Amino acid sequence: MTTGLAGDLRDALPGVPVVDDPDALSAYARDQVPGLPAGKPAAAVFPAETAEVQEIMRIASRTGTPVVTQGAATGLAGAANAVDGCLILSTRRMDRILEIDAAEGIAVVQPGVVNARLREAAQRDGRFYPPDPGSFEACTIGGNVATGAGGMCCVKYGVTADYVRALEVVLADGSVLRTGRRTVKGVAGYDLVKLFTGSEGTLGVITEVTVALRAAPAPPRTVVAEFGSLAAAGAAISAVLAGGATPSLVEILDRTTLAAIESWQPLGIGSDVAALVLLQSDAADADAQTEAWSGVLEGTEATGVYKADDAAESELLMQARRLAYPALERLGGTLLDDVAVPRGALTTLIEGVERIAAAHGLTIGVFGHAGDGNLHPTIVYDRAEPDGERRAFAAFDDIVSLALDLGGTVTGEHGVGLLKRSWLARELDPVALRVHASIKAALDPAGLLNPSKVFEATAG
Amino acid sequence: MTTGLAGDLRDALPGVPVVDDPDALSAYARDQVPGLPAGKPAAAVFPAETAEVQEIMRIASRTGTPVVTQGAATGLAGAANAVDGCLILSTRRMDRILEIDAAEGIAVVQPGVVNARLREAAQRDGRFYPPDPGSFEACTIGGNVATGAGGMCCVKYGVTADYVRALEVVLADGSVLRTGRRTVKGVAGYDLVKLFTGSEGTLGVITEVTVALRAAPAPPRTVVAEFGSLAAAGAAISAVLAGGATPSLVEILDRTTLAAIESWQPLGIGSDVAALVLLQSDAADADAQTEAWSGVLEGTEATGVYKADDAAESELLMQARRLAYPALERLGGTLLDDVAVPRGALTTLIEGVERIAAAHGLTIGVFGHAGDGNLHPTIVYDRAEPDGERRAFAAFDDIVSLALDLGGTVTGEHGVGLLKRSWLARELDPVALRVHASIKAALDPAGLLNPSKVFEATAG
Repeated sequence: MTTGLAGDLRDALPGVPVVDDPDALSAYARDQVPGLPAGKPAAAVFPAETAEVQEIMRIASRTGTPVVTQGAATGLAGAANAVDGCLILSTRRMDRILEIDAAEGIAVVQPGVVNARLREAAQRDGRFYPPDPGSFEACTIGGNVATGAGGMCCVKYGVTADYVRALEVVLADGSVLRTGRRTVKGVAGYDLVKLFTGSEGTLGVITEVTVALRAAPAPPRTVVAEFGSLAAAGAAISAVLAGGATPSLVEILDRTTLAAIESWQPLGIGSDVAALVLLQSDAADADAQTEAWSGVLEGTEATGVYKADDAAESELLMQARRLAYPALERLGGTLLDDVAVPRGALTTLIEGVERIAAAHGLTIGVFGHAGDGNLHPTIVYDRAEPDGERRAFAAFDDIVSLALDLGGTVTGEHGVGLLKRSWLARELDPVALRVHASIKAALDPAGLLNPSKVFEATAG
Repeated sequence: MTTGLAGDLRDALPGVPVVDDPDALSAYARDQVPGLPAGKPAAAVFPAETAEVQEIMRIASRTGTPVVTQGAATGLAGAANAVDGCLILSTRRMDRILEIDAAEGIAVVQPGVVNARLREAAQRDGRFYPPDPGSFEACTIGGNVATGAGGMCCVKYGVTADYVRALEVVLADGSVLRTGRRTVKGVAGYDLVKLFTGSEGTLGVITEVTVALRAAPAPPRTVVAEFGSLAAAGAAISAVLAGGATPSLVEILDRTTLAAIESWQPLGIGSDVAALVLLQSDAADADAQTEAWSGVLEGTEATGVYKADDAAESELLMQARRLAYPALERLGGTLLDDVAVPRGALTTLIEGVERIAAAHGLTIGVFGHAGDGNLHPTIVYDRAEPDGERRAFAAFDDIVSLALDLGGTVTGEHGVGLLKRSWLARELDPVALRVHASIKAALDPAGLLNPSKVFEATAG
């Protein structure tokens, strides 16, 4: 709101880039979701150090300027969208890997470090940072922590929250909170690390992240199975997992998604295939494991089971999964959902989405993390049709509603942001919303940090 | 404080047992730690249902009565100790297992369910609830969640917090918060489940817990190795773990602990053994795994390596670990510590404890969870000596201080309670303490829930 904001920032922080040209600022207005509100920022600032973030927050507090923190803005819920008159606090220049301690299995990074860079650095030291959001080549660790990001690894390795050991956070008033620890275990005080993880920039600005690393896995081996019905696919997944198997990946693609892939880059998947299931093992005995799973799958109603014999063939079998979203994107505008249901409700959810697609006369492809019950129904709409986006959102609402009815959650790994804000109020009860508001008020009394995201501060 | 408290409770909750006889109440004054302050409760109440807990909290709020929630009172930090005039809210009668869904891998229980009962019930359905605090035959799931309890399984399976999916909590004003979810993944809103887990009764009364279950493991196989020095033991553990091994147990016992065992129930461990290391595998190929680890251990400075050939022999090898604490308890009064350090600092910590024991002229046995860097130095003192307890606490302080100096934490799994309250203020910085106080004030503005525990509400 303050016209002198950019000037204040430049005066206080010589050497820190500040952008206030309206055309240049438009690049910072929104993340990857179309159709959500995005305001006009007053300025964007690019600190490189924690002390600079402190100064920025002091200026914001003094001038009553809302602050929206952005990493790579690859988010899928509008959490990083600008609000009118806000300051965009970009973490892009906070991109240093501060420490990798391979023996302890710990990395300490600034928030702007790109996920893939941390993975590579860990790998060079024989270590493995598992969380692998789809955007891992662009997204930042700070954004991953802020949104509680997931990925394909979660069925075996868990989500980002499971890897965050310690955080440094600049609070609304500019003070620095250091919380968490380097040790494997620890219960000293409230778990503030988990409170900030997934809070989507509403409670503080994450300025340093300590994550756990694991031993490097073996090169993965892949098994793919085709099914004539969703129910058969669901039963087959259960059959494999029932034996206590720990695949490092369990993905599913439905008929609509497969058709979109075939019409673009034919992989030879027949139109009679209702679902494709991919399993991977990255264990030391990956070959034996995938061999065993192939045996289990062949005893199910699978109409075809293919097992990779080496890493290259494994990669090839993964192609369908990698093409899923881009193949659907080619068909028109897309709206990507992110619901999670109990694992037993997985095929019921996909069947329900097929009914919703028919009812709305829309194409909706479903793919996702079957092992976690976390799916990404992707609604395709005609951008040229005036009513297209509205119709897509209507189908979207039906899908989220169905997931809740099945005992699920409105977001498995993408977060609430603006996209699911009204839905959060349905998933949570009024007491939970009131507790959210009271914690927000305790940590950010002036409501400057990412206002209007996740929940309305007046909720409850 | 209110003389009419018991009467109010009896009037409002017919059928709910209320104890106000001072002699009977003395049984509820403290947990398992000697030497910590414990006040006189005004009454104890034993609800069986959430609605009764709500009514109790409404009465407590109206009358300004502090409420101390107790499970089995097996805690090791004084967190469940009474404060003067408080109401003891016992969860003993809230002991129903409400649901076990083996297919989804979920159990829903009331807080008073004993850990061992949940383990047995899960096992009957082919499932496994891993968290296994030392007191698992007596302690309750509610207490485990409130303290963030650990155990011997953690090196492979993680701690209690890693298993809690959802909680029902009665807040200070009597309202009921339901938070979390049944799905594997989910990022809708702040992680209130983790905020309440480990909050030691200071933020609400846990009335229902939904935990994740795993596939049942194979019967464990044990390997034991003897070492002539602590450094050799530490190097050997690192050698086994470096290969990415995932033992289900990695425990260590030092010379002092071994001597205490030998003087009571001789197992034939020579006095030249400086450290005994136990490893277990519960994987499908446990025999092959422990065979491989034996091979690695034989290549280290181990002076003896023994591998169990079956489950019975495995049990036998575990005897030393099970005797560790009772053997030390036989020698006098004991003060059990619970520090955690980075894994690489493990032997430095044990060597430091040996120096501290010598400096204070005390016997201090060290045993614990070597795979997590979480040790339980146990100080033995002469109860008859007037100054004994004070001297024990002086040595205790030196150990905690050493753990912090080594980059560790003051409590790995027992919690802060009263025992480590002054230490929390040293581990956390003033900003972190201020955030703790602000969250406490947001959720319990009158400060009725377990006052004076974990941190002073006036902190920061």
